[in-house]
Amino acid sequence: MAADPRPTIRDIAREAGVSTTAVSFALNNRPGISVATRERILQLAEDLGWTPSIAARALSSQRARAVGLIIGRPLGSFAGERFFFHFMMGVERGLSAHRYSFVFHTAAEMSDELDTYRRWWAERRVDAVIVVDLLQDDPRPALLAESGIPAVFAGDFPGYGAAVMSDEEALMRRVIDYGRSLGIESMGYVAGPQSIVHSDRRLRAFAELTTAAGISGMGVAADDYTVEAGHDIVRQLHAAGDLPHFIAFDNEVLCLGATRELVAQGIRVPDDVAVMSLEDSQLCEVMVPAVTAIRRDSAEFGEQCAALVLDLLDGRAEAGTSVVFDPAPEVIERASTAIAPAS
Amino acid sequence: MAADPRPTIRDIAREAGVSTTAVSFALNNRPGISVATRERILQLAEDLGWTPSIAARALSSQRARAVGLIIGRPLGSFAGERFFFHFMMGVERGLSAHRYSFVFHTAAEMSDELDTYRRWWAERRVDAVIVVDLLQDDPRPALLAESGIPAVFAGDFPGYGAAVMSDEEALMRRVIDYGRSLGIESMGYVAGPQSIVHSDRRLRAFAELTTAAGISGMGVAADDYTVEAGHDIVRQLHAAGDLPHFIAFDNEVLCLGATRELVAQGIRVPDDVAVMSLEDSQLCEVMVPAVTAIRRDSAEFGEQCAALVLDLLDGRAEAGTSVVFDPAPEVIERASTAIAPAS
Repeated sequence: MAADPRPTIRDIAREAGVSTTAVSFALNNRPGISVATRERILQLAEDLGWTPSIAARALSSQRARAVGLIIGRPLGSFAGERFFFHFMMGVERGLSAHRYSFVFHTAAEMSDELDTYRRWWAERRVDAVIVVDLLQDDPRPALLAESGIPAVFAGDFPGYGAAVMSDEEALMRRVIDYGRSLGIESMGYVAGPQSIVHSDRRLRAFAELTTAAGISGMGVAADDYTVEAGHDIVRQLHAAGDLPHFIAFDNEVLCLGATRELVAQGIRVPDDVAVMSLEDSQLCEVMVPAVTAIRRDSAEFGEQCAALVLDLLDGRAEAGTSVVFDPAPEVIERASTAIAPAS
Repeated sequence: MAADPRPTIRDIAREAGVSTTAVSFALNNRPGISVATRERILQLAEDLGWTPSIAARALSSQRARAVGLIIGRPLGSFAGERFFFHFMMGVERGLSAHRYSFVFHTAAEMSDELDTYRRWWAERRVDAVIVVDLLQDDPRPALLAESGIPAVFAGDFPGYGAAVMSDEEALMRRVIDYGRSLGIESMGYVAGPQSIVHSDRRLRAFAELTTAAGISGMGVAADDYTVEAGHDIVRQLHAAGDLPHFIAFDNEVLCLGATRELVAQGIRVPDDVAVMSLEDSQLCEVMVPAVTAIRRDSAEFGEQCAALVLDLLDGRAEAGTSVVFDPAPEVIERASTAIAPAS
């Protein structure tokens, strides 16, 4: 590579015929040099196009001006891709508007994720982190608390840092109200893996809300967010004679697998069983029948997380702050729920 | 926020009762202090859990140990999402294996992209960048060359930096050979916008290869990678009486729009017109009929770009190096091309 052309304090010192200490005093507006020298140095710095490096500023201000995000889900989960891509775009947009950089990493295992937080912090690569997919018995909040790493949790508040909460109760109420508007009295809900805290919260909310509404509600957790998991759930429910007239799925990939299995079993969608997805994507439009889905703006969710991180770092928000994202989710109606309401 | 708990050279100096200069000499293994003092300082540094900050190392080594990527396409292009998410995951994997960080930014406009390169470089946030979607008359290579920013271009080599080339000729040959294996003698190809260099290269290769093969080839460029652009192309071709028996589309979203329009016009797919996509995704499986597609590993493409950047930075590769990605793309056959070969 060619020599690095960016001027350093050393270059300015050489040009000005002064010590690097004198240059540092001038650039940092500290006493100890004459006014004339200071002015000469500042002029030279400008002429040479000198900019304080992020490294130098991080050393002096103790700030990296960067926020980190680690994605722990394995690559290949289609629904995850869509959510995370939009979420990351939103985080980046929120950070770059304030000249913060976005550093991200994918971790195949939790131990890698924990090591990376430690290393980022020790190396002062990040000032804070955003954490997604809080788990039952999650080791991350304790590690972050112990190291004193400022953190914003997306979705759930584990008692450390701050959080942009997703309102799972409002979401499940929207789903149940929608089913009831179709005259449905037996309703199923297929959640994501129960190891993820928000899946568990959704399942509980579904059970409480269906009971309160006086309708039959059957909630189950899928092992994974895959087509195969969708197949399996339908096969089990059908074998047990437990198929409700309306089933909501945590995402469109589960819904796709389930719908295929329903059709394979000779069950008509939506006439016998109506289906909907709690995540929307182009897949929902293309499926046959097209799938009714809840649309939420994951980029906006990411942007709110970025805003809360910056508030935390700049003292505008305190640890323990939690804000709620998207309390009024929208239902996009399609053919998979096009049934005549019961009279 | 609580005070930053990470120990600094100043903390070590205070504990040891020596100057920060003495600590710096000890930690950097420079002469000027006694062996006993050095050992005491190193022991204290270890006891306090001191780690050299990335900022300090960047200052001394002139390395940020970070590589940047800017995505210029607007959020919302479905096919772009999938490609970029996988590509970014691959870049990150390649960088983090060598303890380099990945910094990324989305730019709504070219001016933002150019400004961000300048700022990243001036602030020493990145040591190099990876550039995607080279355009006709692209202003980026000149800016990067002028600033001396090491760069790897993904797809095309513009004469500056290094490149991981995509072999558009091999790709188009695979498409044409596949069509010919079906007995097709009139073939269409719908490319992405011609402002993108690789779209133009594909169109040229398509024209040359169909001519060389002695079959009728009609290549057109879509305005965008959208469903609507797919609709429009089919409408135009149909109105002109120019519909070939086989059409390949640059991505599955164009193919989706086109297929819907074909069906709407009463044209049977694949019996009257067979279609295929040059990008594969779950959408191709779900479409009716399911769409034959070329599968390539975008994460692997990203990983190769990361490897070339690190080779460039560490002097293992020279400026001007170009390597070729994926010279043997695979065709995943589905119903959209399930026609009996002409006898």
